[in-house]
This record gives sequence, structure tokens and C-alpha cells, in this order.
Amino acid sequence: MQKKTRDYFNIEKHSSLKPGKWNKITDIEGVKVGHSTLADGDIQTGVTVVMPHENNIFKNKLRAAVHVINGFGKSIGLVQIRELGSIESPIVLTNTLNVGTVSTALIKNILAQNEDIGGKAGSFNSVVLECNDQYLNNLRKLAVQEKDYFKAKENIKKDFREGAVGAGRGMSCYGLKGGIGSSSRRFKISEDEYHLGALVLSNFGKKKDFLLYGKSLSDIMPQKDEEEKDEDREYKSQDGSVIVILATDLPLSSRQLKRLCVRAGAGLAKTGTYISNGSGDIVLAFSTADYITEYDSGDFLQNKILKDRKLDIVFKAAVESTQEAVYNSMVTAESVTGFKGRSRESLKNLINNMER
Amino acid sequence: MQKKTRDYFNIEKHSSLKPGKWNKITDIEGVKVGHSTLADGDIQTGVTVVMPHENNIFKNKLRAAVHVINGFGKSIGLVQIRELGSIESPIVLTNTLNVGTVSTALIKNILAQNEDIGGKAGSFNSVVLECNDQYLNNLRKLAVQEKDYFKAKENIKKDFREGAVGAGRGMSCYGLKGGIGSSSRRFKISEDEYHLGALVLSNFGKKKDFLLYGKSLSDIMPQKDEEEKDEDREYKSQDGSVIVILATDLPLSSRQLKRLCVRAGAGLAKTGTYISNGSGDIVLAFSTADYITEYDSGDFLQNKILKDRKLDIVFKAAVESTQEAVYNSMVTAESVTGFKGRSRESLKNLINNMER
Amino acid sequence: MQKKTRDYFNIEKHSSLKPGKWNKITDIEGVKVGHSTLADGDIQTGVTVVMPHENNIFKNKLRAAVHVINGFGKSIGLVQIRELGSIESPIVLTNTLNVGTVSTALIKNILAQNEDIGGKAGSFNSVVLECNDQYLNNLRKLAVQEKDYFKAKENIKKDFREGAVGAGRGMSCYGLKGGIGSSSRRFKISEDEYHLGALVLSNFGKKKDFLLYGKSLSDIMPQKDEEEKDEDREYKSQDGSVIVILATDLPLSSRQLKRLCVRAGAGLAKTGTYISNGSGDIVLAFSTADYITEYDSGDFLQNKILKDRKLDIVFKAAVESTQEAVYNSMVTAESVTGFKGRSRESLKNLINNMER
Amino acid sequence: MQKKTRDYFNIEKHSSLKPGKWNKITDIEGVKVGHSTLADGDIQTGVTVVMPHENNIFKNKLRAAVHVINGFGKSIGLVQIRELGSIESPIVLTNTLNVGTVSTALIKNILAQNEDIGGKAGSFNSVVLECNDQYLNNLRKLAVQEKDYFKAKENIKKDFREGAVGAGRGMSCYGLKGGIGSSSRRFKISEDEYHLGALVLSNFGKKKDFLLYGKSLSDIMPQKDEEEKDEDREYKSQDGSVIVILATDLPLSSRQLKRLCVRAGAGLAKTGTYISNGSGDIVLAFSTADYITEYDSGDFLQNKILKDRKLDIVFKAAVESTQEAVYNSMVTAESVTGFKGRSRESLKNLINNMER
Repeated sequence: MQKKTRDYFNIEKHSSLKPGKWNKITDIEGVKVGHSTLADGDIQTGVTVVMPHENNIFKNKLRAAVHVINGFGKSIGLVQIRELGSIESPIVLTNTLNVGTVSTALIKNILAQNEDIGGKAGSFNSVVLECNDQYLNNLRKLAVQEKDYFKAKENIKKDFREGAVGAGRGMSCYGLKGGIGSSSRRFKISEDEYHLGALVLSNFGKKKDFLLYGKSLSDIMPQKDEEEKDEDREYKSQDGSVIVILATDLPLSSRQLKRLCVRAGAGLAKTGTYISNGSGDIVLAFSTADYITEYDSGDFLQNKILKDRKLDIVFKAAVESTQEAVYNSMVTAESVTGFKGRSRESLKNLINNMER
Repeated sequence: MQKKTRDYFNIEKHSSLKPGKWNKITDIEGVKVGHSTLADGDIQTGVTVVMPHENNIFKNKLRAAVHVINGFGKSIGLVQIRELGSIESPIVLTNTLNVGTVSTALIKNILAQNEDIGGKAGSFNSVVLECNDQYLNNLRKLAVQEKDYFKAKENIKKDFREGAVGAGRGMSCYGLKGGIGSSSRRFKISEDEYHLGALVLSNFGKKKDFLLYGKSLSDIMPQKDEEEKDEDREYKSQDGSVIVILATDLPLSSRQLKRLCVRAGAGLAKTGTYISNGSGDIVLAFSTADYITEYDSGDFLQNKILKDRKLDIVFKAAVESTQEAVYNSMVTAESVTGFKGRSRESLKNLINNMER
Repeated sequence: MQKKTRDYFNIEKHSSLKPGKWNKITDIEGVKVGHSTLADGDIQTGVTVVMPHENNIFKNKLRAAVHVINGFGKSIGLVQIRELGSIESPIVLTNTLNVGTVSTALIKNILAQNEDIGGKAGSFNSVVLECNDQYLNNLRKLAVQEKDYFKAKENIKKDFREGAVGAGRGMSCYGLKGGIGSSSRRFKISEDEYHLGALVLSNFGKKKDFLLYGKSLSDIMPQKDEEEKDEDREYKSQDGSVIVILATDLPLSSRQLKRLCVRAGAGLAKTGTYISNGSGDIVLAFSTADYITEYDSGDFLQNKILKDRKLDIVFKAAVESTQEAVYNSMVTAESVTGFKGRSRESLKNLINNMER
Repeated sequence: MQKKTRDYFNIEKHSSLKPGKWNKITDIEGVKVGHSTLADGDIQTGVTVVMPHENNIFKNKLRAAVHVINGFGKSIGLVQIRELGSIESPIVLTNTLNVGTVSTALIKNILAQNEDIGGKAGSFNSVVLECNDQYLNNLRKLAVQEKDYFKAKENIKKDFREGAVGAGRGMSCYGLKGGIGSSSRRFKISEDEYHLGALVLSNFGKKKDFLLYGKSLSDIMPQKDEEEKDEDREYKSQDGSVIVILATDLPLSSRQLKRLCVRAGAGLAKTGTYISNGSGDIVLAFSTADYITEYDSGDFLQNKILKDRKLDIVFKAAVESTQEAVYNSMVTAESVTGFKGRSRESLKNLINNMER
């Protein structure tokens, strides 16, 4: 088991709600996550797949929403989610220039599972989100192949790894190593327990802006004066991006899921970011509570939906789990050296060194 | 030269503004259009490229906007256009499941032209828009290859063909053959002449809804009673989509270009559509008036922008040219027979038959 | 009974669906409409109230949505409808500078009915929409008083008048007299009959742009050459606005109601408008199918919601009833002479003269 | 001079940019703020006016944008700001049920200054934003009168008071006294100094969520265990709202101002909020750099606009000044007792008590 933020710091006081069993997005029943990691010299990149449930997702769509905090991004699939309030695809993360390749892989996968696409079921809306890992990864090589999507998908599990893995392999967060992080919260409504989980692909922020529950890096540990390197400066003109995936087993409408996404933005802000110009900050939320079986018989869906006035606890869960997921992405990530010999130091290492 | 709507019908009274020289989107200086057409048995599809100007588009971005009328669509590139109000990519059209492949081709093309992508210029936002041509094209074969993008790009010209070509090869419009259509308007502001051009990829509507400047098909020509075929019914569950590209040499802000896009929707409505559920109706507009040279020296851009109160003539041009472009897509298209032996009749043929 | 468009023209062929009993928005059970009309010399204005149902609307909210086609408008109440997907207020129409006064009247009315506002029920979201009637009405006199809201509300009925009444008193449409118009459609889903109704406050367009089911005014009747008057020219800089209210008894989500609103825009476009710069074109839709009783016990709502793939018939109903409602606003309106002796001629009169 | 957050706490380390001369929104040249305060027993409310410049604002409009973080609010004027990217009105703040009254006062004021409204200048878009002060103020009395707008306007000055004044009189923030707060930042671009200022009307959050630069209230001072009072619980169902006004002398487009507004949301999040369901959180930003003189001669505007890649320093300024403005609203506010004998304690008092 990877040590996470809670294993290093007492964060109980910053958290009004308890995490689920895994403290991961996979605490939502049916959700699994898999990675394919490419780590070889100047290639430090990969693919991460979030499977929303275990059945045919194209035939069993889920209510969903997206929110673009800052749209300096190249994702595919958002237009239809907005119109129909649903997803019909696994959610895939990768580097910014490989979205097309991964989308094609995803399409081939779903075509193979659904004979009626191209016939009475029409087209398919692939969802691929991205960050730019060009600091550690030779982006121009377009290293991710279609097979990497399939490999990530084969690897899906409940207890997936976080940190410098999958799409997170080459990502940087607050000048340190970022990548995949996750966290979850559980809470009761009407005597029933529900869960909300967040998964982030973190690739944003500058060292001096980082806040760990209000503490800056220099509050936590002595900071050496760093000469800004040329490559750093080059990179800075394009700093950023973060993708947040929120999953919940609570029955929310797509309108409510959109409201939930906005709260993820508050969770990100609490980690210190001012949301830089070059950042593609996108949140996608889905609820596993009901399948939308559009193409079955029957003209109506029967939905049980939470009342809006009961949303506050869910909003808190979204803020807290997004914030903690960012920290988890940093705390679990090992240091990585890649493209042009550049490296990003692991926050975990910094903490361990400090502790010694 | 292809005969267009104006060659068959007296449309002067429906048009308050005159068309440009070509009556095409290429009446805007610098704009060129090219096709790659795949027409072989059950493969009836292709790629169409709109080049916004003749220089390096990544280094010389243009102000732009998008408007989603109905978001049942799978386009890539819209998120960043919304945030930054600019395009940095050729605008490429293809079938719905080949967006990823074409995006990757576009990325390879732009990478080859711009050494600084993946370095100080960061990432690149490819723009690929689509319709679903599954009625005439075997969509599941994912027939479009990366080379088709390059072929379309090699073919760019001012006097491009309209109709059943490029991305329009397999498209259907109002139960007849649709595809690529274009039209333009010219008008004076402050003694200077400006142009607005529209290019559509038409793939929407049912025969009984079609209106040719207010006249239904049965007003124009006798209609035979048609038995609805099974394949027709199958197809209907996913009817639709239309992409509209608007170009102008008038200096408009991205906010104003967004307003322009909304007017394209009025142009579409006048052709009879009620905008069906399954339609992905998307409008993209750009102005060639200024280059946005973000990465040059200097912290400010100097812009000359039209006052909003002068927009009415441009709005009219957008409505009229979009409406006429839809008709042109139908009037120029030849009949096509493709997947499963299905065919779409040419409106041109119907008119010619009627005239005989 | 007022003669409407169907009484003058054969519009069956332009209409795929049948109207309801009244061919008005009041064909939706529970919906009533009332007017207060101010018509005295240079004061030609008023208030129109649409009551969504017969019970306490604040305690029995309805799912709702708004869509801004062109936002040159001054309405109040839209922000909250967007966030919560619901209305808790009668929908009130008036002239552009009296929105504040009418909002205050509405607040006093709802406060009197709901003791818990200002306490546990918090605040109240009044909905007041407007057009600018300054051509016929001396707008600067702010003639509408709080009592006019109450008077309009007392007058609510099923068989309300259309034309130059209530908020429509001073409005102009396509250079002729506009105002209040309404139309409806009925249709079957799963063997049950449902209704959709539209009510417009029409105040947009220029004479030469008008299309009556594809026919221009000069197609219908001989047009005299008109000298453009100075006041006309003055007015033109601010031409326009139209408000569309859609009501349905079909259970739609707020997301679907938003999609419905977009189709009202297609209905407007078919009457000829290119949506001028100065126009505030706003659509509001609500469903009477369920009450949202947020403040009752219970944490969840149970909703029956139409599947999106069944929306096409409703979309058609929205297009057709909006288009016909605009015509009805013109055909029912008498000629009005008002501010500065200006007058707007009645389309009804033109037709009657022509027929003689 | 009122003591502000900087006078109690060392906040240099949390602030990368220096404040302007006043550390208020009035550091932007031309901007002035005035209050009218109603403080008498159960009436604790008022009006605050932000004047964007010293000339006729209707004739000299400014580029502007709005961003709705959470739309549980009743403001007027936002629709047109979105469409035209400009304001033509003073920005007025008041309590939630008096928006109509204040809008009417504002209209009368602007009508008196502009003879051409209702004629060739058309209508006027009043901007009135609100929070719900019902905990301390008897909201149902609709205490604010039209004269209070005029009184606030007479009182405008550079060195305006913050805290429990004007529209802020009855507001609560994080369970303590909130109200009006302001802060500013200055920064250089191309050797020229520019300013950004924030003004907030704070009325959101619960005591346990408050973070003063990462420290909770219990970190700062010992907290007594509080029995939750019935009125508290009642109030909680409608907690919240905050209005943020951002002003800058930097030439930004309306698109860029919209982006700026999003960053104010990050500033709010850093004060601890999770953005509760019942909160109306709205940001409005304007730039004083150019007048938009739409109705002058000339068809084009000449704009100098900052490049997007230079926005980061402005984004930081927006985050920092919004965050500090919230703290200033609390630190400057005196304790207030009002409706039903309820009171909100002053953070200033708490700090002073602690220091003794």
C-alpha cells in the first residue's frame, strides 16, 4: 500500500467528513481505474482509464456533467456531455497531443462491444482528457499508442496506484512531481451511506504558490534558494492543467453534478493555485446511481434525485476530496527524471528527508 | 463551374446583400478549401480542410468563436476556442468516428511546421468537426486515414468543389443528398468593402421539413408517396448534424463572432429544421482581420473592432449565407449510392427532371 | 373570440401537429394569463402575468429553464432559474424600464402569501421579462405602477385576449403592430396526450424581413413605397426584442427544457428575423408535470422524465407554436397610435383591406 | 482610518503583490464608493454604490464581464453585460428583496442625466446585485427606499468606510459580522504601473469553515462551545451569498475580464467556503482603460488589449485582493444586533479581546 497524505500529516482537523475504505475514487461501487505507464528515457507519459461501472457503459449510460474552470485544454467529448447530461464512455486521461490516438483506440474498443454503432445506435462519444507533460516527456514523439489504452483498461482495479503512473507519469505539480491522486468521502443522507470520490491528474502550479492545508512549502521544510533554470522558464510559459474526475453513488441530476464540479474548483484553489492563463482545468462528474437506458423500450425514465437543499454535504465532500487528491498525487509520486535530463522531485522524498 | 442555387432559382428577393465573386467562403482573402474524397462501394466519406489564411496559422492565430446549437456531437478543439477566443489550427471536417485520426494527422502536420511546440510554444489545439455519415458510409470501417488529411490540404484552392465531396461525400440533408455547400455576402462599412462567407457540412433534416425559401419540396415538384424503408427508420433515430464555418475579413472581437454564430442558427432554421434531438449542430466563426501574435515581443495587442451597433448588416450576411450554403450543398451534390446499397437522391437531379 | 392566423390563412400544411382547444398557452392545465393595459395618449404600455398553476407557486415550484438568444435585455430572475432549474414565481411581462417596479409588486404579493419568506424560506426569486415599447409609449414616464401587476393578476383567465393588450400594448413587430400572441400543440407519447403552449411578447423585426410561412408582406399584399420617417430611423437603432414563454404538461427535466427553448429560436427565425444587435430575445420554458416541494420532508424527489430520444415531437411543437404565436400577436393586434402621434398598423387591418 | 487585516496580522508572506495607496477598489483612478446605511432596531440594511468613473457612465460605457459561481441570487443587469461585454450603469449593492426598488431609483437617476433614453439611445441596463441580510435585518419590511440609492451616491468618495455599512450593514460572514470589504494590488506591465481592486459584499460561510490564510478560528483564538440556537438553524437553510466587484485600469477585453472573475472564485475558496447550495456568489469585473462610446460617430473602436499570456500577474492580483477583501469586510465590521435581537460578533472585537 502506498503511503498517502494522511500517513504523513494529521489532516483530521481539515476534513469534516471521513474517507471511504480505499480513500480513492474506487470507493464508489463499480468504479475501477487502470494505468499504462511509459517510462523510458525521454518518454515519460502514459494512459489512465476510469471505468465508471462494470457493465456495457455505452448501453448503460450515466448522468454526468463537465465544468471548464480554465479552457486552455484539448479534451474531446465535452460537447455531448453538456447537451445530454450523460456519459457513454470510459473516461481516459493522457498527454495533450495523444488525445486523438487514444480516442481512436476507445472507439475501436466500443465498436467491438456494440454491433449497433454505425447502425441503429448511431455514433459514440469518446471522452479523453489531457494535461501537457512536456517538461518531463518528449511530447513531440507522440509516444502513446492505441495499445496503451487497451493495456490500461486491462489493468483496472479497485486498489490502483497513485502518483507517477499512467497519464500522471510525466506531470508536474507545484514545481514538484505530480500525477494521479485520489481521495474519497462518505456521508449519510436519510440513513443511507453514500460516497463521493475524486481522481485528479495534477499538472499545475508553481512551488511558491503551494499550500498544504494553509502551510507553504517553506512553512513545512527549509527551502534552498533555487536558480531558475532556462528550461524552467521555458516551461513556465505553458504551465499547468489539472483534470478532476468526481464520482458518486448518490442520485444527482446532471444539473446538480455540474454544481458539484464547481466545488472541485474550490478544492483546487485551496491547494494554492491562482489558475494560470495556460492551464486547462476541467472537472467531470458522474453519478452511478442509475443507468440511462435510452434505447430500451419505454418512453420515460423514473429517477430518484436528491433535493438541492441537501447538497451541502456533497459539496463539502467534493471540496475536501479534490483538495486531498491533489496532495495525494504529490505525496505518492516518486521523483522522475526524463526529457532533456530534467527532473521533478518527489514531495514524499522531501518529507522523508526532513523527517530524518 | 458547378451550377448553384442561384442558377436554378431566382433568389434575389430573398437576399438583401450581394454575394462575393465566388459566392463561397473563399471570397474572404486568404481562405482556401480542399477535399479528400473516399468513394468506393460501402465507403463514402472523406475529409475537408478550411485553411483560414496562407501563413503559419499556429504562429498567426485568428480571433474566433464557437456556438453549439445542439451538442449531440463529437468535435475536438472547442474548449480552447471558447477560453482564448482564437484558433491556431486549420479547421477540418470529417465523419464522426474519424475525428481522432484526423486530429492526430493535424498534430503531426503542425508539429512539423513548428519546432517550438513541445518546447516554449507548449501544446497545439487541433480543430476537427464532424457529422455522422453512416447512412451512406460504412462508419465502422473507420475508413479515413491520416493521409487523407494531408491530401485534402494539398488540394486547397479558391474555387473548391461543393456537394458530395470531401467530408460531405456520405452526408444526407433533408432526405436528399447533402454535403459541402458554401455562399458569401459582401457589404460596405465606412466606405470599405467587407465579406462574410459560410461553408456548411449539411447532414440534417427530414424530407417533409425542407423549405426552399419558404417552399416545401411538394410546392416545388410533385412528390411520390414513399414507403418508409427499414433502414430509413433505423437511421432516423440518429438523424442529423450540421457544421457551419463562418469567415469574415471584418475586424470583430471573439465576443462578436460568437454573436455571429448565433445568427447562423437562424439561417439553418429558415431551411426548415426543428433541430432534432440527435443532431450535432455547431457553428465556428473566425475573422481574418488581425493576426494574434501572442508569442511575439510586446505585451499588448492593438485592435480595431467594429462597434456592436454596426453589426446588423453582418448578422444579415450570416443568416443569408448560411441558408444559401445549405441549399448549395444540396443543389451541387450528385446522387450517391453506398453502404448496404442505400442511396440519396440529388436535389439537382430532381430539379433537372422536373424541368424536362 | 378573436380571429387568429388560422382564421385568415390555411396553415395546415405548415403545421405537422394540431393545436390544443384554445390554441393558447392556457391549453396547459393550470396555466392562466391576465393583462393590465395602459392606453391613454402617449402612454401605451402594460403588464401581462402568466400564472404557471393555480396553487402557491413559491411552495410548489416547477422545473424550468431559460435561454438567451440575444442578451440586449433587462430581465430579472434568470440567474436563479439557471442554477436551480426551477421557477417559484409568476412570470410577468412589462416594458423595459418598469421591471424594478413590477418586481417589487411581485415580491409584495408573494410575501403576503408566504409568511416564511425572510425566515426559514429565505428569499424569493421574482421573474420579470421585458421589451422596449418606446416607439408607441412614452417610456420615460415609467407609467406602470405596482397596482398594474395586481390588476393583471386579478384578470387571469384561460381565454385571455391577444394582441395590443397588457405588456403588448405598445410593442411593434416587423414594422406593424405586435404584442401578445399565443399558440399551442398537442401530441401523444405512450398513448397519453400532452400539450405544449407558447406565449410571445413580440417587439422585433423590420417590415421587409417579415415572412408569413415563407411569404413576404409584398407576396401577400401590394406594398406602398414608404418614406422612412425620422422617428422610424431613431427607433431603429434600438429595434427589437421578443420574449417567448413555453409551457408544457410533459415531464421534462430542466436540461430538456433548456433544449426546448433553443427550438423556440428556430420558430422565431422562420418568421424572418435575423436577430438584430439591439434585440433582447429570451425564452423561458417550464413544465407543470411535477411540483418541486423542496421544503417538505424527505430528502429525494421522485421524477418521471421523458427520454431524450423522444424529444423530437416536443421540439417540433415548440418551433411550430412559437412561429404561430408571433403571427397571432400580429393578426390579433389592433392598430395603435401613441407617443408623439406615432402609430403601428394592424396586420389584421391590412388583410381585411386586402380582402375587400 | 479603519484598521484592516494588515494592521492585525502579518500577511506579507501570503501576498506576492503590493496593495495600492488605499488598499481599496478606489485605487483604480475614477472609481468611488458610497453608502447609505439603515441601522435602527430590526432594520439593519442599506445601499452601496460603486461608481466606475466620474463621467456619464451611460454615454461612456466600460468593458465588463460577469461570472456566476453559484446562481442562488436575484441580481438584475447580468444578461446584457454578458451579451455586450460592457456596463453602462453604476454598480449598486443592496438586500435581496430591494433590488427592484433600487433598480427603479437608478433608472430615474440615469434618465435625468440622459435625455436620449427612451429616444435614440433606447433603454438603460441597471446593475443591482444583492445578498440576503435576513438574519440581522427584517427583510419583509422592504426598508430600502429609492432615496437610499441617491443618498449612497451623494456619499461617494475614495476613502470609503468598510464593514457594517451600506449594503453590508446586515450581512454575516462565517458566522461573524460581514459586510463591505475591499483590497487592491498594483503591478507593472511594460514599465507601466497598473492596479486591480476588489470590493466584496460578504454574507456567506459557517464559523467552522473559516480560514484566515490557512488558520481556522480555533487556531487563532480559543473557541467556546456554542449551543446552536433555533434562529441559527433556521437561517442556515439559506446561508450565504457574496458579491465581488473587480476593477482594473489595465486594458482587458470582456473575455479576459470574464477570466479574471473566475479567479475571484479562487480567492473566495481560500477563505474556507465550500460554496453552499443557498449561496448567490457572483463576480462582476470592469476595466476603466477605455470608454466605449458606441453612439459617437465612427464605426470602429480602437482598442489596446493585454495579451493573454501576460494575464498571470493580473490573475494573482484578483485572487489575492478578493481573499483579503473578505478578511477586511470582517475585520472592519463592528458587532451588530438587529432583527429579533439576533447579533453577529465582530472579528475585530474577538481579536482585540484575545490581544488583551
